[in-house]
Amino acid sequence: MGEQLRVGVVGAGMMGADHVVRIQKRISGARVGAIIEPDAGRAAAAVATASGAQAFTRVEDAIEAGAVDAVLIATPGPFHLPVLRPALDARLPILCEKPLTPDTATAWEVLEHEQQLDRPHIQVGFMRRFDAEYAALRELIATGDAGELLMLRCLHRNPSVSDSYTQTMLITDSVVHEFDVVPWLAGSPVRSVEVKHPRRNSLAPDRLREPILVLIELENGVLVDVEMSVSVQFGYQVAAEAVFERGIARIGQPSGLQQWRDARFSVGEHVSYTTRFAAAYDTQVQRWVDAVRDGRLVDGPDAWDGYLVALSCEAGVKALDGGVVAVEAPQRPDFYASGGLAS
Amino acid sequence: MGEQLRVGVVGAGMMGADHVVRIQKRISGARVGAIIEPDAGRAAAAVATASGAQAFTRVEDAIEAGAVDAVLIATPGPFHLPVLRPALDARLPILCEKPLTPDTATAWEVLEHEQQLDRPHIQVGFMRRFDAEYAALRELIATGDAGELLMLRCLHRNPSVSDSYTQTMLITDSVVHEFDVVPWLAGSPVRSVEVKHPRRNSLAPDRLREPILVLIELENGVLVDVEMSVSVQFGYQVAAEAVFERGIARIGQPSGLQQWRDARFSVGEHVSYTTRFAAAYDTQVQRWVDAVRDGRLVDGPDAWDGYLVALSCEAGVKALDGGVVAVEAPQRPDFYASGGLAS
Amino acid sequence: MGEQLRVGVVGAGMMGADHVVRIQKRISGARVGAIIEPDAGRAAAAVATASGAQAFTRVEDAIEAGAVDAVLIATPGPFHLPVLRPALDARLPILCEKPLTPDTATAWEVLEHEQQLDRPHIQVGFMRRFDAEYAALRELIATGDAGELLMLRCLHRNPSVSDSYTQTMLITDSVVHEFDVVPWLAGSPVRSVEVKHPRRNSLAPDRLREPILVLIELENGVLVDVEMSVSVQFGYQVAAEAVFERGIARIGQPSGLQQWRDARFSVGEHVSYTTRFAAAYDTQVQRWVDAVRDGRLVDGPDAWDGYLVALSCEAGVKALDGGVVAVEAPQRPDFYASGGLAS
Amino acid sequence: MGEQLRVGVVGAGMMGADHVVRIQKRISGARVGAIIEPDAGRAAAAVATASGAQAFTRVEDAIEAGAVDAVLIATPGPFHLPVLRPALDARLPILCEKPLTPDTATAWEVLEHEQQLDRPHIQVGFMRRFDAEYAALRELIATGDAGELLMLRCLHRNPSVSDSYTQTMLITDSVVHEFDVVPWLAGSPVRSVEVKHPRRNSLAPDRLREPILVLIELENGVLVDVEMSVSVQFGYQVAAEAVFERGIARIGQPSGLQQWRDARFSVGEHVSYTTRFAAAYDTQVQRWVDAVRDGRLVDGPDAWDGYLVALSCEAGVKALDGGVVAVEAPQRPDFYASGGLAS
Repeated sequence: MGEQLRVGVVGAGMMGADHVVRIQKRISGARVGAIIEPDAGRAAAAVATASGAQAFTRVEDAIEAGAVDAVLIATPGPFHLPVLRPALDARLPILCEKPLTPDTATAWEVLEHEQQLDRPHIQVGFMRRFDAEYAALRELIATGDAGELLMLRCLHRNPSVSDSYTQTMLITDSVVHEFDVVPWLAGSPVRSVEVKHPRRNSLAPDRLREPILVLIELENGVLVDVEMSVSVQFGYQVAAEAVFERGIARIGQPSGLQQWRDARFSVGEHVSYTTRFAAAYDTQVQRWVDAVRDGRLVDGPDAWDGYLVALSCEAGVKALDGGVVAVEAPQRPDFYASGGLAS
Repeated sequence: MGEQLRVGVVGAGMMGADHVVRIQKRISGARVGAIIEPDAGRAAAAVATASGAQAFTRVEDAIEAGAVDAVLIATPGPFHLPVLRPALDARLPILCEKPLTPDTATAWEVLEHEQQLDRPHIQVGFMRRFDAEYAALRELIATGDAGELLMLRCLHRNPSVSDSYTQTMLITDSVVHEFDVVPWLAGSPVRSVEVKHPRRNSLAPDRLREPILVLIELENGVLVDVEMSVSVQFGYQVAAEAVFERGIARIGQPSGLQQWRDARFSVGEHVSYTTRFAAAYDTQVQRWVDAVRDGRLVDGPDAWDGYLVALSCEAGVKALDGGVVAVEAPQRPDFYASGGLAS
Repeated sequence: MGEQLRVGVVGAGMMGADHVVRIQKRISGARVGAIIEPDAGRAAAAVATASGAQAFTRVEDAIEAGAVDAVLIATPGPFHLPVLRPALDARLPILCEKPLTPDTATAWEVLEHEQQLDRPHIQVGFMRRFDAEYAALRELIATGDAGELLMLRCLHRNPSVSDSYTQTMLITDSVVHEFDVVPWLAGSPVRSVEVKHPRRNSLAPDRLREPILVLIELENGVLVDVEMSVSVQFGYQVAAEAVFERGIARIGQPSGLQQWRDARFSVGEHVSYTTRFAAAYDTQVQRWVDAVRDGRLVDGPDAWDGYLVALSCEAGVKALDGGVVAVEAPQRPDFYASGGLAS
Repeated sequence: MGEQLRVGVVGAGMMGADHVVRIQKRISGARVGAIIEPDAGRAAAAVATASGAQAFTRVEDAIEAGAVDAVLIATPGPFHLPVLRPALDARLPILCEKPLTPDTATAWEVLEHEQQLDRPHIQVGFMRRFDAEYAALRELIATGDAGELLMLRCLHRNPSVSDSYTQTMLITDSVVHEFDVVPWLAGSPVRSVEVKHPRRNSLAPDRLREPILVLIELENGVLVDVEMSVSVQFGYQVAAEAVFERGIARIGQPSGLQQWRDARFSVGEHVSYTTRFAAAYDTQVQRWVDAVRDGRLVDGPDAWDGYLVALSCEAGVKALDGGVVAVEAPQRPDFYASGGLAS
């Protein structure tokens, strides 16, 4: 490898600022070339932690200035499209935080745009694929060592959510992760989605009816359920149990320093995704930087995967109102042949 | 307490023989007064382990001979009714292995018969209520210490089943336990039952389509799911996760001697209910013997509870063919006021 | 088996009262025939829980009255000898709480007395041998499945002790258990004892210098260490790690209901031996009752084992002052051939 | 930060090659500037994985060529001195794999040499200080939240060792890690060392008498024991239990994907330090690179710490022959004031 990759980080909110520190402090072969952020205060704060980075308010300006070799989009989903367009025009490799875009129509537009290039340039930031335990589970499934996979029982528990979190975000912001990682684990796409409503958590904001239990059927018959809680107070837990023909596997259990105090044995639990997936985020960005530097451009979920997830989310939102909602995905184009479930 | 209770054990198959040993070797205040078993070989084998016990082929004869103070019915469900009738006629206290009877019509007949006595005489052998971890979970729910209960996630996994096990027995022989213990835990009866079919385990006997995922809604809104497997090979596991407003509780995890060998840390898992619930069976019978000796007669699920379970099973069997099946229970009669959910 | 064994419980303090309830409520084949207790209040309280039991102030009177078939001695160690003598004279089977007697001289006197009978009549109440995990560990050692045993790392932690607990009781009242169970596990007697003094726990009573680390060498070369704490506050923990040639085994880890609350995963820990060894005490007494009823009289550590433990304790107390103290045991007499390490 | 740090990696054996990959692939702000390795084959292999790196046979040549900004010494201990000397002469920052040098005399020479510079330039590669669980344990000790630390119970178990491993290496190559990390954890230096010999593992090479139990007394009274095994077959385990006044803490327990198979619950255990401490090695090198780039030069154990460890090892080797061996360390010079226990 030669020179360091100059990454343009778009968005300097919490997620963007986190990526800036990551690239500067922990990633080999890359540095932050530019911060693209309209808010002057945020921009200045981010630049202060990334010596040598230039500040821009629009991605187009960063591109025109020749300040970036690749783009990492860390803004909220509704702001992805206006960045993806010029970045694709400039043929820049892109790591786009999930979701690709907020809806299937715009996601499709992105796919059409990208297919005008010579090969996929977009990777979507579903970081769970880079978590060591998820990877180990996928390996176990792939080997068939415990027999065929029959069920996946997913737990996705958050202590609380921000004021801006809405009922549909249970699907589009939270279950969205399972919509990506489950087909990747099981090697089969989503066939249908259904939502069950347990007793409501009275500690949830008034506007939310949760937890929910999401039932997902895959094309290969595997039944998936996702227990989705966002007000369960105790901490942040993402775990899963895989039911095979000959045994069970489980990931996401507590680990680390153990204590005996006050008549209890205990281990700390996470309280946020930032610690639960800290290593996964690092691995994701390191592997993306490596892929960009050696010309592969993508090493993880591609834009087609992002589109499939958008289709599942659309079905999931519909399913919040009741019924089993089918998901019908078009055939994966040859253009995206190398990506997706095989990655 | 005075004299030892002379228990008539009806049925000397595996379950009955187990109860004979239990009463003779580990239970205080009781002895086996009679073995009621038509198969001469089985009867002789059982008597050999219970010195002082008389052998009879029919329960009526044991009663007439004045050989028993109470009856423990350990035959398969279809044979319960012909024993319950004369035992009730003789006003004997009865511990009846689950199910009370195989269907709601005969269960109702038993209820009517029993209500001609001065008070309940029948306890049904749902032993999970006497398991220490189930009891601890119920206590946690009752205190409200972790907030209201929202969901119960039940795992019921068997390594394999006998040749006589049929598809409906997934409900009537296996989920039947959850139909009793779940309302007892959650303090609320079953409102509806639904069955989902994951990918089929190819190691299951051809006649079985399993595992199944049973969704149970309780009157108080708590959503329950039961993962029911009978061919999962690795061992026998009965576990549950309770989702509260402020936290999670889990029972049924492996314990005991831990080993590090061959690059793995491991703990033995059960392979049968006989070890998993050994202590629960002992506690159940000891507490029943105590209750009979001090005149309470019942200390656990009563016949009305057995009837409610039969209603749920009826719905569950219907649900195997699809759809959400409602359960409508009549009001608990005053006669059974002391029993049930409060016990 | 025929009639119920009438047990005379000597001492109605905490330990004796516990045994009375055990025999009356949970043990098959026995009942409390007599309470022997000079304190009238205690005696009355015990008799109230054991209907049919007679009260005596001296064991000789209970024997003379023909009220007991066997004796369970639950007084403190210094009061054992005056009970053992008449009980042996009366050729009664005896379950004697540990220690046999407080010193090797009196223990030797008991051995000589007992050897005048036709066979051993005394079992010593080292209940750990009846704990399921200790038994599983012993089985693993005996099979040689993990290679030869090399080390035993014992943890013996108490939250606090009573005002009467003295420095030498660290050995004679606490490590005494390891002096019995370790040779039984490892199949080899104690060769020497040494005591190391870690930093003192400032929460210990002023009179105590603890924790201590006791190093025990066995005849077969196995090195044992016992971490002995009696003021460690958090709870009661008795655990051990066995180091084999090919692996490790561990017992005594927390189990039961698991909880996630307040950013921690936790499991309850014991706070007293009464819950940690509840099942072991029951098993011990049940097996002793069975052994007495079928004429074996002893099923566990015999008086010779109790004497060996007294020798180790003597060495341990000496070792509190420094140095490696050798333990030299005479040859086990033929009279005690069936007991001891083989049991 | 400006330019990338050009690291000269001395030694391209297993450890050196590992560091080359680490620096090239996972460390931010550094690249391999030179490989210093006399073996041409090894050198070529290492250069192939580090594009842009130059190859030298002697460190003096790399320095003269101006090819390196800092030096990472990854040769065996006996070869450290000839590299340390010219690197110190050139005032280069140095990360030196443990041990600093093989004996206290040469370690003292290095200290004298280093003190001719303006400040410490040497960091010693005791990577355990960068392990997340060790750090969490140190934090717990420092807060005093569980009371004062009383004991540290260290487990250091290897499956097997290479043919070149000798009896003294039990101390100088293995317990050497505890000699560094224990004083760092407990905030107190070593006062004495003693070695106990358990039963020998017959699977150990004939030349080795192990496992050993090393007893270490710290100046503050804390008693430490280290169970040191190098032939225990099952896997690689580094764990510790800290005994406080009010509770216990434990690190190094198995984690990751859990499986139920064949009547056992299990979790994978490490088989080598390379996976157990993979993250610790990365963190160590990243923090050293950061410290060099921002002018601090050292962020971890310094040469004085390395010298203290050499003193403890000297005592430990003596203690292999029996007896309690005192360790007497001179006062830490002002020159090293910022390092050591406080780091």
